[in-house]
Amino acid sequence: MTTVTYDDVLAAAGRISGLALRTPVLEVSPGVYFKLETLQHSGSFKVRGAFNRILSAGELPGSGVIAASGGNHGLAVAYAARELGARAEIFVPEVTSPVKVAGLEALGAHITQTGAIYSDAAEAAAKRAAETGALVVHAYDQGEVVAGQGTVGLEIMEQTGGVDTILVAVGGGGLAAGVTIGSSAARIVAVEPEGIPTLHDALRAGRPVPVPVRGVAADALGATQLGRVAFEVLSSSRVSSVLVGDEAIVAARRELWRRHRVAVEHAGATAYAALSSGGYRAEAGERVAVVLCGANTDPATLAIG
Amino acid sequence: MTTVTYDDVLAAAGRISGLALRTPVLEVSPGVYFKLETLQHSGSFKVRGAFNRILSAGELPGSGVIAASGGNHGLAVAYAARELGARAEIFVPEVTSPVKVAGLEALGAHITQTGAIYSDAAEAAAKRAAETGALVVHAYDQGEVVAGQGTVGLEIMEQTGGVDTILVAVGGGGLAAGVTIGSSAARIVAVEPEGIPTLHDALRAGRPVPVPVRGVAADALGATQLGRVAFEVLSSSRVSSVLVGDEAIVAARRELWRRHRVAVEHAGATAYAALSSGGYRAEAGERVAVVLCGANTDPATLAIG
Repeated sequence: MTTVTYDDVLAAAGRISGLALRTPVLEVSPGVYFKLETLQHSGSFKVRGAFNRILSAGELPGSGVIAASGGNHGLAVAYAARELGARAEIFVPEVTSPVKVAGLEALGAHITQTGAIYSDAAEAAAKRAAETGALVVHAYDQGEVVAGQGTVGLEIMEQTGGVDTILVAVGGGGLAAGVTIGSSAARIVAVEPEGIPTLHDALRAGRPVPVPVRGVAADALGATQLGRVAFEVLSSSRVSSVLVGDEAIVAARRELWRRHRVAVEHAGATAYAALSSGGYRAEAGERVAVVLCGANTDPATLAIG
Repeated sequence: MTTVTYDDVLAAAGRISGLALRTPVLEVSPGVYFKLETLQHSGSFKVRGAFNRILSAGELPGSGVIAASGGNHGLAVAYAARELGARAEIFVPEVTSPVKVAGLEALGAHITQTGAIYSDAAEAAAKRAAETGALVVHAYDQGEVVAGQGTVGLEIMEQTGGVDTILVAVGGGGLAAGVTIGSSAARIVAVEPEGIPTLHDALRAGRPVPVPVRGVAADALGATQLGRVAFEVLSSSRVSSVLVGDEAIVAARRELWRRHRVAVEHAGATAYAALSSGGYRAEAGERVAVVLCGANTDPATLAIG
């Protein structure tokens, strides 16, 4: 079992400084902060973990790095590899849209489209890695990845002068676990869609268990079960699990654009949905930060009016 | 002639604190900062001037405030009046789109649609103000409005620890003038579309002169001539005038979304266009801030891919 510590997050912050952006925090009302990870390189927080994983490995093999994902993680690994001058191979399932494949290719990644669904592509990537010796960058279940995502929590505490509570979305749980370790916030509210309850079901079962993957945020919170590292961290008493419905996510995303002019993808609106729908109610005077974690979305889908 | 001073900007900062947002700054590359006024209440910097103008007036008449604008200024005055519990009358020309009228109505403003173009609506608003005694909030040519916009410059210097140069868009010139007064940046680069050269032509003529209003940014940088207050400030030696073409503005706006996931309107991309097109070239080591001043745009028009 990999245990990730606060010192690991501090070390990650040093490693990725100048590579990942220190994204800004917006105080939208007194004591309520948005961490704008929407503005991060490659459009989501995922580059933090990718950079930390790759830089922690020391010298890379000539075969470079390898990952499976047609979404934010794939983009992040391709971006980080390009910035570090490394070769990147990204495995994506055949259903991946041509737009996403083109986005990965524009970053210089070598793409293999294989298998009907994500897990097929992941399996093929693992097989390929065993052959080539390329460094595998997992989407969430590696200590270095979790430590990299933890720098989001570190920055929130520095930029706000400290908050009581951080709301953060959960898929595989890498970001939520990292933020829990990297922050000294008293309370972590781990928010996930009702259609993909990886943490909720893991807490009930006492271990990560497979869940269905359904709903509007499935493209980015589509892990079929919580990571082992994340389970270890998120089963602590500081963390509470909140589920939100797709309607709340859609409404939160619309409100983030209409009221705040922040463009987010559905997954990126999930943490905020807990606050805007009343699924989580802050106490009077409670200082709250919400991680808006990604913006890889077609802006045409942001309703106006 | 109204002369606006640094102390006026400081006073404005005190007045509008807690009403206008202190928008965040993003360091996109070492020494290059975006001031994200796109995230401001009502979608643009204009609320700063509106709040300062209204709050400087002391007790308001029962007829409240009045302004002419179907765009960002109208939204800002309507928003500020609502927050302060004041009545707002907004005059807009008949060409104003139903979506914009609905946006103003949603903020509780009383709308009068009159006249073929903006100057007709402005004339009707002035006549109405003379009858009712309502406080006129001008879109740019009032000292209190300029001082309010100047808080953008003040914040940039505080949030970045100081920059050498600030790039800012010019229409009527209220924002550019305010930022010049409110910052101690050595250099102000005042950027305007080639199709609406209010500052460029004023500097050549030695006074504000009418200009044609053409091109993609005309909806928000559509003043037909530079304000008198702005001319006084912007004809100083610290300020240089740069013109950018519509193609550069369109490309800058697309890049701001694609690379940085910042949604801006064309006017909001105009200052950045000077940097991204090479119209302004920063020296090695020069610290530069770019004001991204508005985001009241249909996100469907942000090309993806």
